[in-house]
This record gives sequence, C-alpha cells and structure tokens, in this order.
Amino acid sequence: MNYAGKRVLVTGGLGFIGSNVAVRLAREGAAVTVLDSTVRGCGANTHNLAPFSAQIDVINDDIGALSTYHSSVVGTDVVFNLAGEISHINSMRDPVRDLELNTTSQLRFLLALRDICPGVKVVYASTRQVYGVPQYLPINESHPINPIDFNGIHKHAAASYHRLLTARGELDATIMRLTNIYGPRMALNIPEQGVLGHFFRRALNGEDIEVFGDGQQLRDPVYVDDIVEACLLAGEQKALPNTNMNVGGLEALPLAEMARILVAEAGSEVRFRPFPDGHKSIDIGSFSTDNSFIREILGWAPTVPFATGARLTLEYYREHREHYLP
Amino acid sequence: MNYAGKRVLVTGGLGFIGSNVAVRLAREGAAVTVLDSTVRGCGANTHNLAPFSAQIDVINDDIGALSTYHSSVVGTDVVFNLAGEISHINSMRDPVRDLELNTTSQLRFLLALRDICPGVKVVYASTRQVYGVPQYLPINESHPINPIDFNGIHKHAAASYHRLLTARGELDATIMRLTNIYGPRMALNIPEQGVLGHFFRRALNGEDIEVFGDGQQLRDPVYVDDIVEACLLAGEQKALPNTNMNVGGLEALPLAEMARILVAEAGSEVRFRPFPDGHKSIDIGSFSTDNSFIREILGWAPTVPFATGARLTLEYYREHREHYLP
Repeated sequence: MNYAGKRVLVTGGLGFIGSNVAVRLAREGAAVTVLDSTVRGCGANTHNLAPFSAQIDVINDDIGALSTYHSSVVGTDVVFNLAGEISHINSMRDPVRDLELNTTSQLRFLLALRDICPGVKVVYASTRQVYGVPQYLPINESHPINPIDFNGIHKHAAASYHRLLTARGELDATIMRLTNIYGPRMALNIPEQGVLGHFFRRALNGEDIEVFGDGQQLRDPVYVDDIVEACLLAGEQKALPNTNMNVGGLEALPLAEMARILVAEAGSEVRFRPFPDGHKSIDIGSFSTDNSFIREILGWAPTVPFATGARLTLEYYREHREHYLP
Repeated sequence: MNYAGKRVLVTGGLGFIGSNVAVRLAREGAAVTVLDSTVRGCGANTHNLAPFSAQIDVINDDIGALSTYHSSVVGTDVVFNLAGEISHINSMRDPVRDLELNTTSQLRFLLALRDICPGVKVVYASTRQVYGVPQYLPINESHPINPIDFNGIHKHAAASYHRLLTARGELDATIMRLTNIYGPRMALNIPEQGVLGHFFRRALNGEDIEVFGDGQQLRDPVYVDDIVEACLLAGEQKALPNTNMNVGGLEALPLAEMARILVAEAGSEVRFRPFPDGHKSIDIGSFSTDNSFIREILGWAPTVPFATGARLTLEYYREHREHYLP
C-alpha cells in the first residue's frame, strides 16, 4: 500500500466500516481527516476512534455542509465516502429521513467535492440491496437493479451521482457494492442496523439467538478487515474500468449456520421464529456475490472464514464491551 | 373511456401534458382537481386551464405538501402524476433544485397519497431520459437504466418509489416512459424545456431554426393528444402486469427534418451550428421507442404524423399567441 503521507478524507469515519478504514489508513501513515455527523441510529461511536485521537482529525458535521469547512478538504488525495444510513427497516418507517441522509446529503457533498478537489478519487460504499431479490446466484455487477426498500433506492441514486460525475470527468469514483459485513467497531445496540450485529449482541450476552423463518437464507458475510483491504486497494487506482464493483464474502452460509457458530461460542441456543411484521416484505431470500470482477481488477479476494472472523469479533467486544453494550 | 363521474387528480395540471390531460378528462365528464405549484421554469401556465375554470378545480401548492389539503383528495379514483421539472440542462446547473422538485416532493406526495387513498391507481410520467445513451434502437422497457444527467437520476428515483409502493400493494402505479412530446399548451418561452418548444417558438416568430451538430439525431416525437389517450387508457386499468411502459412516436425523424417541416410553415430556414457548452455532454444521440408493450397491453398506438401535429400545434399558438409568447 502506498498511503504514507497521503491526505485522505473518510466520511462516516466514526461508524463501523469508516472507523476501520480510518484506523488502517493512520497505520499506513496517511494524514486522515474524518467527517461524521454522528446522526443517531447510524452507528457512529466516538470510542471507535478515541484511541487514535492523536493521529486522526475528526470533524463533526453533516457531509452535506462540506462547503463550510472547505479548507480542511483542499488537497485531499483520496475520499472514502462511507457516510450513510444502512438500515432497510428504518428506511421503510421514515423514507424522507432516509432520502435526506443517503441522497440529498450525498448530492450536496459531491457537488462541493468536485469544486474543491476536481477529479479526486472517491471510494463509495454502496450495497447489495440495490439488486433486490436475486434473479440468479451468485450475483454479478450486471444483475438488474430492483431495490425492494427505500434504502436501496436512495443508495442507488447516490451511486448514480458518483457514476454520472465520473463519466463527466469531474470525480473519479469507484462504487463498492458491499454485502453483509461484521467485525470490530460495528454497532451492536441498534437492532435496525442488520442481522449480524443483532446476532453478535445476543452471543455476547450469552443469550439465545433468534432466527426468522427457517434460517436457510444464504448470506456471504465479509470480515471488516477484508473490506478495508478492498477499499484501500480501490483508492489507490485511478480511472478503474467500471465504476461498480461487488465485494462479497469467502463462503455463502445459511443464517442459521452463522447463528450456530455464535451460540457455540456463547453457550446458548438458536431459536426459530416467524418473520415479524415489516421484515418479511423487505427480505430478499438468499444472496451470494460473484467476486470475479474485483478479483480481476484489484487482485482482491476475501480471506477470513466466518468462524475465524466471529471469534476475532467476540474477542474485540469482550475487551471493549463498555463502549458498545453499556 | 369510462371517466364520467370519476374523481381524478392531475398533478402538474397547469403544465403541458397535465393541462391536456385535465381538459380531456373534463370533456369525458370526470370531476377534475389539478394540483400545481407553478414553480417558475417548469412550464405551468394559468392560461392552459383558464377557459375551463368552471369545470376544473385548481389548487396552487407543492405536491409535497399534500397532507395539508387532504380532504380534497379523499375519494380520488385515479391520479395522473405529471408534476415535475423536465429540463435536463437545468438539472445540471442546479442538481439540488432538481432533486427537490422531482424526487423529494414526489416521495412526500406518494407517502401521503398511500395513506389518504390506499391502493389508488396512479399514472406517472417518467421519461426516456432514464435510459441514457441507447445501447440499441428501438429501445424497449428492458434496456439498462443509465441516465446521463441529474434529471434522469431523479426521475428514475421517483419512478422507483412508484414501483416499490406498487409491489407492496400500497398504490397501483403505471410508469409511462415518455419520449419527446409536442403540441398545444407546451411552454415556448423556456429554452431549457426541450428542443421542440424551441423549434416551435422560432417557427412562430418566422425565424430561422438552429440545429446543433448535423441534426441527424433521431427522435420519435409524439403529438400530445396521443399521449393523453395513452395516459387515460392506463388510468382505466387496474394492476397492469408491468409497472413500466414506453410511450413513443409514430415515426423516427432526424431533428433536422423536423426543423425543415417547421421552417416550411414559417417561411424561414434551418441553420446548423456546433453544440454549445454543456449541451453535448448530455446529448444521447439518436433515440427511438419500441412501443410493442403498450400496444399489447393497452391497444394503444400513436396516430399523428409529425407534419400533421406540427400544423395543428402552430394553429393553436397563432390563435393563443399572447398567452405563450407575450
């Protein structure tokens, strides 16, 4: 990696992926600025970067207000644009909030960014959710876009801004379509932030894990260190040949199997229950990722099996529990 | 048609397509309410409905404020959702304005509508612009979505709201992807509202018509009465089998040929000039529509050749000139 001395900006840098990216970049010797609005419910946690306060500069503000702190962004070499609300279920409860957080703020941010840092490299975190219910598995980048929740519509609109501004030569964006990610620094106390955080919280509390339906839906979880590696590799490359890139896991596992791995560590049990109201309609069934494109272009492949990543994750939270499950 | 006694709501009803739909519905005996914000530059013209003020009720407000006049919408049978900003070039100049007009307002409108009139039939005016640069001609509904301007991104997000709420059974929307439309009641004094309005204005003024590039780009213009017929047919059908429907013209003509037809009426000439700054990057080249799906589902086909529609259009504006080219 070639980040020593580079100026990098990480939006959403107090959140799960953002903080892991920021910490890794600081270790690589980059000059890291984090921009995070700490919107309630989006996963920001000041402890995520607290041990690194000497190396990482944190600005607490909405990304949509970028023009007001212009000077701290001038000269940025790479932007890791990881701010956003990831909750599908919250987006159904309050679509207007989701639009503001994921689309309007991103538009304002990108318009300011292209003026302040024309042509700058941007790595944007999109989501597998834009594909909707899979028409085939594993999913590659040419699968139709059919999101089945507002979150997917809004994240796709923001990705389209990145694509459009890149086609016009005003930015140089790569759009990473991320599958389920887990690992240190994820929010555990926000049920709407996804099934894996919920599973880990139950395991850490020694509680049984509830699985909706029969739990046979496949997911291909990625350990966050693998995602960080993919983001940093993408951030080093100029003008990649396609703006969209799937980033999926090493193995596709049933949700019930992930739950079993975790209860084995926790000494508890898996319990099955019907989907609650509101969840079934936005469930996409099974999902797995075709990683051929990112492997070819960046030489990246996931390396951490879920059983290993789960153990590493539980170790982190046992050590830092008071900051995540107070 | 079966609209006699029906309660219909037409958003954007003071604009070009909206006013033509509203007038036709009133003639069919429907109880017509128009909702129009008369945002400057979007084509609203109070004269469009002034001769029909006894039959058509006009509410001047933003569609995004729907909940505040709730009672006038209760019991609506069909919504013709035609409000929006259609200017590609304006969307590049002020993308945040375009987002507000085409996406945020639509989201607020649809969320209120599903609560006030659950399951109501909605006919939404989307645009061929969502396809971007054609990968093949004529374009059918499964062509990839790749808009090359903010307007296309925002109109597509709004169409996605219609699709999502329809899939959830909360609305019953049909999304019409409209190509270039012309005819009585279009705005002629807003250059950003499209090439055909510009051509007609020049012709009415007896001026030469300027064509960008060589003018060989194909378009398949539709006379507005044909579009009105398609909208009304769609509005009568419940639960159509696909939410997206192309609505294109009878013939694909080079822009230069359309200009020639108009200057022949005007006694002026066609002049060719290079694309001005900002226009070339959002030009999609040639476009023509595959109408197979709407023909099969609604039995609709365009009926008016451009030469005929152009003459009818010029006649209308010669009679009502003071309201369109003051």
